[in-house]
Amino acid sequence: MSVSLTSRIGAALALLSLAAAVTPRAGAQPAEAPASTEVAPDGKVTFRIAAPRAGAVTVAGDWVPQGLGSGGPLEKDDRGVWSLTVGPLPADFYSYSFNVDGARVADPRNPLLKPGLAGPESLIEVPGEGAEFEASRDVPHGEVRAVWYRSATLDAPRRMHVYTPPGYEAGAERYPVLYLLHGAGDEDSGWSTIGRAGFILDNLIAAKKAVPMIVVMPNGSLPRPASLPRSAPGAAPTPELRAAREAMQNRFTDELLKEVVPFVESHYRARPGRAGRALAGLSMGGGQTLRVVTTHPDQFAYVGVWSAGIGRDAADFEERNKDFLDHADRVNAAVRLLSIRVGDRDTGALAGSKALAEILDKRGIKHELGISGGGHTWINWRHYLSEFAPKLFH
Amino acid sequence: MSVSLTSRIGAALALLSLAAAVTPRAGAQPAEAPASTEVAPDGKVTFRIAAPRAGAVTVAGDWVPQGLGSGGPLEKDDRGVWSLTVGPLPADFYSYSFNVDGARVADPRNPLLKPGLAGPESLIEVPGEGAEFEASRDVPHGEVRAVWYRSATLDAPRRMHVYTPPGYEAGAERYPVLYLLHGAGDEDSGWSTIGRAGFILDNLIAAKKAVPMIVVMPNGSLPRPASLPRSAPGAAPTPELRAAREAMQNRFTDELLKEVVPFVESHYRARPGRAGRALAGLSMGGGQTLRVVTTHPDQFAYVGVWSAGIGRDAADFEERNKDFLDHADRVNAAVRLLSIRVGDRDTGALAGSKALAEILDKRGIKHELGISGGGHTWINWRHYLSEFAPKLFH
Repeated sequence: MSVSLTSRIGAALALLSLAAAVTPRAGAQPAEAPASTEVAPDGKVTFRIAAPRAGAVTVAGDWVPQGLGSGGPLEKDDRGVWSLTVGPLPADFYSYSFNVDGARVADPRNPLLKPGLAGPESLIEVPGEGAEFEASRDVPHGEVRAVWYRSATLDAPRRMHVYTPPGYEAGAERYPVLYLLHGAGDEDSGWSTIGRAGFILDNLIAAKKAVPMIVVMPNGSLPRPASLPRSAPGAAPTPELRAAREAMQNRFTDELLKEVVPFVESHYRARPGRAGRALAGLSMGGGQTLRVVTTHPDQFAYVGVWSAGIGRDAADFEERNKDFLDHADRVNAAVRLLSIRVGDRDTGALAGSKALAEILDKRGIKHELGISGGGHTWINWRHYLSEFAPKLFH
Repeated sequence: MSVSLTSRIGAALALLSLAAAVTPRAGAQPAEAPASTEVAPDGKVTFRIAAPRAGAVTVAGDWVPQGLGSGGPLEKDDRGVWSLTVGPLPADFYSYSFNVDGARVADPRNPLLKPGLAGPESLIEVPGEGAEFEASRDVPHGEVRAVWYRSATLDAPRRMHVYTPPGYEAGAERYPVLYLLHGAGDEDSGWSTIGRAGFILDNLIAAKKAVPMIVVMPNGSLPRPASLPRSAPGAAPTPELRAAREAMQNRFTDELLKEVVPFVESHYRARPGRAGRALAGLSMGGGQTLRVVTTHPDQFAYVGVWSAGIGRDAADFEERNKDFLDHADRVNAAVRLLSIRVGDRDTGALAGSKALAEILDKRGIKHELGISGGGHTWINWRHYLSEFAPKLFH
C-alpha cells in the first residue's frame, strides 16, 4: 500500500456528486484536491494543507519527540497548498497537527482524529511489519463501547470506553478486566483512537498471545476544585498547594474503586476480585496507577506504571507511602506483576521511574523496570500495552 | 449554565501540572488561555481562536444555513486571539469550523468533535429547553458501540456504530432495529457525535415516548470504482456516467441487505423480519433509503427519507421505479410509514421531496410529507429523528 488512508477521502467525496437531490454542504472540500497525506513505499510521508493566505505553516507529530525527523517549515505551491515530506518513518501510527500562522490545528482533510482536552490531532498509518500488531487486520474484532454512568463520587455524569473481546456478545463466559488509564490532555476515547487498544487486543487474542479480556478505559481527568490554589509559574508548590493536589488526585482513586470497578463488575460479565483485575496507565494515568496501588495494593494483581514515576522528591514519596513500602511481603503476595516502563528520551519520567525502581529495590518490592527507546509518545504506549497484555491473567 | 462545555477545558488542563513526574506534551495549550467558546445566558455565543500571525479568520456553522446569523469576520486582539460573538442562538447543538487564512479547521481547543470525510468540525451546546430532547440528561443511558465486520459485498473491513438501549446488557429481550444512515461527507460515527442519536433515544425511552430499540448506524460511503467516469464540472451526466453511478449506489443496497442486516440479526438480540425493522437516512442517506425501499419494499415497515428526494428528473425516477410505483397495494401493505421530511431553506432537496410526494400521491402510495423550517443541517436531522422514533414499532 503506497498511499495512506486519507487518500481515500477524495474517492469518498466523489460521492457528494452522486446524491442527485442533495444540496452540497457548505464548506465541503472539492473532490479533486490532492490527498492531505501520502505515504511512499519507502516510508516517507508527505503532509499537505491548503491555506492560500497563510504566512507560515509547520507540522508537529510523534516522530519529532521520538527523534525521527523534523516538523517543517512547509513550503507553499502556486495553488496555496503547503507541503512537507518527512522520514522515512518506521511503520507505525503517528499523530500530528499543523500550525497555521500560530493556530495549532488538526488536518482539515483527514477523518482519522484523536479528540483530546488539549485539542484534536490527526492520525496517520505508515503501514508495514512494525505496525502489524496495532493494524486493523482480518481477525475477529471485539467491540468498543462508549458508556455513560452517573458518578456519586464526582456528582456528575461520566463516560468510559469499554472493549469487549470477540465472542463476548454471543457467549456467557466471564472475563478478566484490564483498567487502562490515559494521560493529561486526553480523555477516555484516547486509548481507542491513537491508542488503538481494541486492535492491539484483537491481534493478540487472535494470535493466542493474550487471553480474552475486557479493557475498561475510564475518564481520568477531574474537574478542578475552585478551592485549589494556583502556584505562580515556575515557583515550587507550597505545602498547602501540594495537600490540595493530593486531595484532588485521591478523588480519582475513589472514582476508580468506588464507581468504575463496581459498575463494570455489576454491568458486564467481568471476573470479580483481584486475580482478575489489572491496572495500567501512562503519564498522568501512570501517576494515578501508582497512587491506587500504593494505597490499595490488594485490589489489582497486575500493575503497569508507564512514562510516569515519582517526581523529584524521593524522600517525600517514601514518607507519603510508608505503609505500602513497609509491607513488602503483603505487597508481593498481592501484586503478581509491577511493571515500570519509560522511554530513554523522556527525561523527567525516566528519572522518576528509575527513582521509583530504586526505592522498590531497597524495600524488597518485586517489580520490572523496562527502558525503551523514544520519548513521551503514544508510539511507546501502544508498544507497552502490546507487551503488557500477554503477561496478564495466567 | 452560562458557560459552555469547552470552558471546562481550562480546568482539565490544570491537571497537566499535577502529574509531577510527567513531561508536558509538546504543543499543549497553556492552562490560562481563555475558553474557545462561551455561551451567555441569553444564547449569544462567542468564538475564539489563537492565531497570532493570521491575516483573516472567519467561522462557519449550522446557524448560518439555518438563517440564524453570520460567520464573521472575527476580530483580533493584542494577544493574537481572534473572536466573534453571534446570536442569540436558540438552545440546540451546533457544529462549526474556523477558516484561518484559507485553511478550514476545527476548533483547536474544543474536545467535542465531529469527524467526517469532509474534515473535522467542532460541536457546541447552547443549553436550554429546546435542546433537552438531545442533551445528556440524568436518565438511564444505552451504549454506543463501534463494531467492525468483514463485508463480502465490498471485500473490505467495514465499521458500523450500534446503539443498544438501557437494560440491553443485563436482559434477554429481543429489540426492534432502526437502521439510520448518514449523509455525504460524514461517516458511521456522525449520528453519534453531531447526530446525538444515543442521547435522543435515551431521552425518548426514559419518557416512554419511544419503545426501546437498537439503532444501527452503518458506513454509507463507498469506495469509488476506478471505472467510474468523471463528468466535466457543470456538464450534465452522460447516460454512461448515470448508469455507472446507479451500479455504484446499488452496492450500498447490497451492503445493507446482504451484510449489515444479517450481521445485526445474527450478532444482537434483534427482532428479525420487516415489522421489527425501520430505515431512515438524511441527504445521501435519504437517497440510499429511497433506493432500498423502491427496490425492496418488503424489507422495512417504517421508512424515513430526509433532506433528499428524487432530483430534477421526475420522469426518469418514474421510469426507473416502475415496479415499485405500479404496485401501490403491495407497498402500502408492507410499509406502514413512509415519512418524507425536508427544510424550507433546503432548495434542491425541497423540490425533490415535493416531486417525490406528488408521484406517490398520483400512484396511491401512502406517505407523509413534513416541511420544517431551516436548511440542510444536523439541526433538522436531530429533530426528524426525535419525531420519527416515537412512531416506530407499535
